Amino acid sequence: MKNQQIVLASTPDFNPNPEHFTLVETDMPEISTEQVLCETQYLSLDPYMRSQIAGRHMSGSIHPGDLMRGETVSKVIESNHADYQKGDLVRTFGNWQTHSVHDAPELSKVNQAIKPASYALSLLGMPGLTAYSGLVWIAEAKAGDTVVIPAATGAVGSTAGQLAKARGCTVVGIVGSDEKGQYALDKLGYDAVINRKTDDLNAKLSEYCPNGIDVYFDLVGGETLNLVCTKLALNARVILCGLMADYNSPERTPGPLPGPIIGARAMLKGLVVYDFEPRRDEFIAACLPLIESGKLAMQEDMAEGIESAPEAFCRLMRGENQGKAIVKIA
Amino acid sequence: MKNQQIVLASTPDFNPNPEHFTLVETDMPEISTEQVLCETQYLSLDPYMRSQIAGRHMSGSIHPGDLMRGETVSKVIESNHADYQKGDLVRTFGNWQTHSVHDAPELSKVNQAIKPASYALSLLGMPGLTAYSGLVWIAEAKAGDTVVIPAATGAVGSTAGQLAKARGCTVVGIVGSDEKGQYALDKLGYDAVINRKTDDLNAKLSEYCPNGIDVYFDLVGGETLNLVCTKLALNARVILCGLMADYNSPERTPGPLPGPIIGARAMLKGLVVYDFEPRRDEFIAACLPLIESGKLAMQEDMAEGIESAPEAFCRLMRGENQGKAIVKIA
Repeated sequence: MKNQQIVLASTPDFNPNPEHFTLVETDMPEISTEQVLCETQYLSLDPYMRSQIAGRHMSGSIHPGDLMRGETVSKVIESNHADYQKGDLVRTFGNWQTHSVHDAPELSKVNQAIKPASYALSLLGMPGLTAYSGLVWIAEAKAGDTVVIPAATGAVGSTAGQLAKARGCTVVGIVGSDEKGQYALDKLGYDAVINRKTDDLNAKLSEYCPNGIDVYFDLVGGETLNLVCTKLALNARVILCGLMADYNSPERTPGPLPGPIIGARAMLKGLVVYDFEPRRDEFIAACLPLIESGKLAMQEDMAEGIESAPEAFCRLMRGENQGKAIVKIA
Repeated sequence: MKNQQIVLASTPDFNPNPEHFTLVETDMPEISTEQVLCETQYLSLDPYMRSQIAGRHMSGSIHPGDLMRGETVSKVIESNHADYQKGDLVRTFGNWQTHSVHDAPELSKVNQAIKPASYALSLLGMPGLTAYSGLVWIAEAKAGDTVVIPAATGAVGSTAGQLAKARGCTVVGIVGSDEKGQYALDKLGYDAVINRKTDDLNAKLSEYCPNGIDVYFDLVGGETLNLVCTKLALNARVILCGLMADYNSPERTPGPLPGPIIGARAMLKGLVVYDFEPRRDEFIAACLPLIESGKLAMQEDMAEGIESAPEAFCRLMRGENQGKAIVKIA
């Protein structure tokens, strides 16, 4: 049996396509003392990976020939460590491959209340924790707030939107297609949606946020961020969390004008989800009842097999995914 | 006796000069029931006035023919209101004129512990309150922080610098001349200064802030803000408080890139001093002992006579003032 891996073949200039990746087979890894061998069950695909490929991500760069990195839910299939037994489900950075070897500190057991287990990568994983940290812990969104969320049906956006709705906010989503807009209205409970490709974003934001924007959960940067920052309500909170608009471009869009931010006494705050890892249990405990009561769910865009990962990632980067992009591997 | 006033004669395109203003004489104002007649003692000149003239300030615009506005320490010379007696010193918006009429809610008595009384417009007035609110209440600057202050010898900057020093911070000032730099080092206690006209700002900021910038008290906006935001320490706080760099220009400089702000988990917060008016007494009480012990002072650039106000304002806008620009009128 071989370990199947996806490595970067070449660095894309703009949108990645499957030819930028290659499937390679290597010998099955062996474990030393205290190590654990895992079989990948689910691989998370996320926009930050585009930034890693471009050499611009704080977690480091991926060059041609490098294994693509990513978070996984993996099953322990062989263990030399007392804390992990064969059959345990763990969350780790197993990367884009069928098998991986880890030291114990790289693993966290998946809370057994999380069902399906893939939720440990989506709704109750990093995207969910990102949404919760930004919306609840930083922005402290409260009933009556007008909350605007770009990439409104994405993994982070859809969670933030549902959480905002559950807290009594008015929630306006920005989407890239009418189909996603309909989904946001019907399934995620958004009060209004704006199609950034066909609507006049400026006019629609003014229409749907007549008293200004209290919370903007920025996942895209670019001109949308700059426009929103001219429409903030007094004491607005802007969570800076992603730069999707720039991921496929060699150019950086300049940032928002400070003048209107001063006028609104607004707060902009950079969010990196890793900082909130120590509070993951608190977040899961807060969300489980919302899932139970049907107020919180996540659509997963599930590809099958390690070989499908490149095309699934490219669809994500083209914005064609329907929900959190995950590859089911084992 | 006449009331002497300075009105805007024409709107400057770039730097204002004295010809943009005119001295006019009007009849002495008369007071009705419950009103108070004041004689202006000190008039505060501030950069935000340039923004009012340009029609871009949140407090409203000043058009040709309009009386120039401004905060004053004034003396009550006639009163129809029981709370105010002849001889009382008050703080109000008496504007650029020798006499003004007010309803009582427009007046605040000057705390008698404030000496000289002009400090009610400078160190213990709006500039001081601005500095204190931003540095202490918002940024919560603490011992060990590296604090960078542009316009380091200006009214707000020099107060923020001294307050930061008193709190045990390392304080780096940005100035527009070597003379101001020397003053910042010798009199204000800055640890280092950078001459933005002759030094390489980028290189010097890196040299003086080797562990990044913890607090940036932005008073200027423009490219300096954008550069500083690429050099922030983890959990940095940026106070957005002024746009001096753009006041004399019809163009708006775009704002800081969000990427480095996210990486630093930085907070940017808009500050408008009016919001902190309810805490003015708390601020004065905190500062009086620092003044007493010699840790806090303010140089005042005192012009004499209402007719000198235009030239004093133009010097302020050219950055040639030495300390807080004030006009002594009565």
